Amino acid sequence: MNQNYPSVLLEQAVNQFSSLPGVGRKSALRHVLWLLKQQETDVDAFADSLKRLRHEVRYCRVCHNISDQEVCPICSGMKRDKHTVCVVENVQDVMQIENTGQYLGLYHVLGGIISPMDGIGPKDIEVDSLVERIVPEAIQEVILALPTTMEGDTTNFYIYRRLQDTGVRVSQIARGVAVGGEIEYTDELTLGRSIVNRTEFKC
Amino acid sequence: MNQNYPSVLLEQAVNQFSSLPGVGRKSALRHVLWLLKQQETDVDAFADSLKRLRHEVRYCRVCHNISDQEVCPICSGMKRDKHTVCVVENVQDVMQIENTGQYLGLYHVLGGIISPMDGIGPKDIEVDSLVERIVPEAIQEVILALPTTMEGDTTNFYIYRRLQDTGVRVSQIARGVAVGGEIEYTDELTLGRSIVNRTEFKC
Repeated sequence: MNQNYPSVLLEQAVNQFSSLPGVGRKSALRHVLWLLKQQETDVDAFADSLKRLRHEVRYCRVCHNISDQEVCPICSGMKRDKHTVCVVENVQDVMQIENTGQYLGLYHVLGGIISPMDGIGPKDIEVDSLVERIVPEAIQEVILALPTTMEGDTTNFYIYRRLQDTGVRVSQIARGVAVGGEIEYTDELTLGRSIVNRTEFKC
Repeated sequence: MNQNYPSVLLEQAVNQFSSLPGVGRKSALRHVLWLLKQQETDVDAFADSLKRLRHEVRYCRVCHNISDQEVCPICSGMKRDKHTVCVVENVQDVMQIENTGQYLGLYHVLGGIISPMDGIGPKDIEVDSLVERIVPEAIQEVILALPTTMEGDTTNFYIYRRLQDTGVRVSQIARGVAVGGEIEYTDELTLGRSIVNRTEFKC
């Protein structure tokens, strides 16, 4: 599409928006024209919010989650179980697990998973810092909550090997039929795993 | 969804992005986390581009299209037919018609169409300024290119009435079966119009 933008400023703003993942040039143009109709102060607030985000946001020194302070509210929370660490790939995963309200332990954000295809090795993610947390923090259990992909499995295995010497208990989140899911429509791999990893029936 | 954002700055940036039309909080979060991974200078450039857009973009004094100058490149273009004006609802429509490469006249951007339901009356759109252009610019034809909706038809009719005294020729873009469209799947209204407004067959 050979777009003729009537203004260079408009074109630059469209270029910026369409650099975002999953945003095409049509959507970008719609965003830009919408912003043009807003108050100057509102657009300034939008722009300043992005600048402040990039310049001022920090990553928790302990778990590498996004934070406004040096240590995030979860790591410094009084009501958290400090002996359990849940290992996740990224910040969204922390938010997703927090939303369940079912987990009260700490987290460790790897910032990626091992993926030779993408050139991401064990040194590119926060595994060393995880291993270094175990003894000083007296961590008793590490829960692996990584994606069920080849990369996730590889990373799980690598972390498991690295943690073996520490004596910490390593578990992984349950794989099985989704709550509300029909047996008939569950894929064979998941269904197979759900039978192998069956749990005791409790009423 | 009761999201617990780990950082206030993150939450503010997500709020800003999700204020854009058609952007949900999940997409907004994805955008924000992507920006966090970019260089500081790139994020600053993004933010500055939005500010400059809002503060510096102007609207062409003649046709009300977006422009970097007081008069837009189309209105001041040497190769344009200055006696024909195409009336459109918004800036996107100008870009879309320019992309066809089939039109060399001028434009007039109304900035909306008459829509009593949305409280938009004839005074809220650029009709007066269109009428005032006809005589001084010696315009011979006004082409109405508004959407085929009740609001578009109302606006077409209103503009036609306002232009009657000027003696300018008023036309509207052809409605009919889309190029590549199947007769079988064309809606009755469009197909009916395409028969009523049939054109002479030329080889």
